[in-house]
Amino acid sequence: MTDNIFDLTGRKLDRELFESLCETDQISIERIISTGQTTPPDQWYDQSRDEWVILLQGEAQLMFEDESTIDLKAGDYLLIPAHQKHRVSYTSSEPVCIWLAIHAALTENE
Amino acid sequence: MTDNIFDLTGRKLDRELFESLCETDQISIERIISTGQTTPPDQWYDQSRDEWVILLQGEAQLMFEDESTIDLKAGDYLLIPAHQKHRVSYTSSEPVCIWLAIHAALTENE
Repeated sequence: MTDNIFDLTGRKLDRELFESLCETDQISIERIISTGQTTPPDQWYDQSRDEWVILLQGEAQLMFEDESTIDLKAGDYLLIPAHQKHRVSYTSSEPVCIWLAIHAALTENE
Repeated sequence: MTDNIFDLTGRKLDRELFESLCETDQISIERIISTGQTTPPDQWYDQSRDEWVILLQGEAQLMFEDESTIDLKAGDYLLIPAHQKHRVSYTSSEPVCIWLAIHAALTENE
């Protein structure tokens, strides 16, 4: 009846994994497992929905279009508004990065 | 720009704390800090919205109306559908329990 967000049993960690934990038309709750992967240097996430994201294990860095960066450690969370371009510029592989992301309309502008 | 879910700076832990992290009409993302508190024995949570909840620190136990229980450790998560009566029958105080709860329409029935 419960699952554990840190449980990697049976997962092949040779690529970044995106796993839906709960999904409706309006909201998506997703686990992301990163093992050193980053967004290719010339690519950006430009998402149609807001994202509230928390890093639960590992260390990571996000970069924004103005080249500012945010270093993340376990427990750090932030809201990335829709269409705020960003890329993942670093993820640790030991330990593996485990993210919890909530995609939904989360700001009053929508 | 980021906050940390484990940061208890400035919090008085003499009662259970419910803190909104992100809120719209449709969704609420909430941190709950429990330090040994439980739901009074004759009371139940009977919520109008679904709740997806993860325990991120500590140990806890939930009880349902049929008296079945679920023991939770850090990282365990579950979906509690709207109106599924439940109570919190145990929370550890060392370490403090830190929960992340998402209240929204999360099942297809709504």
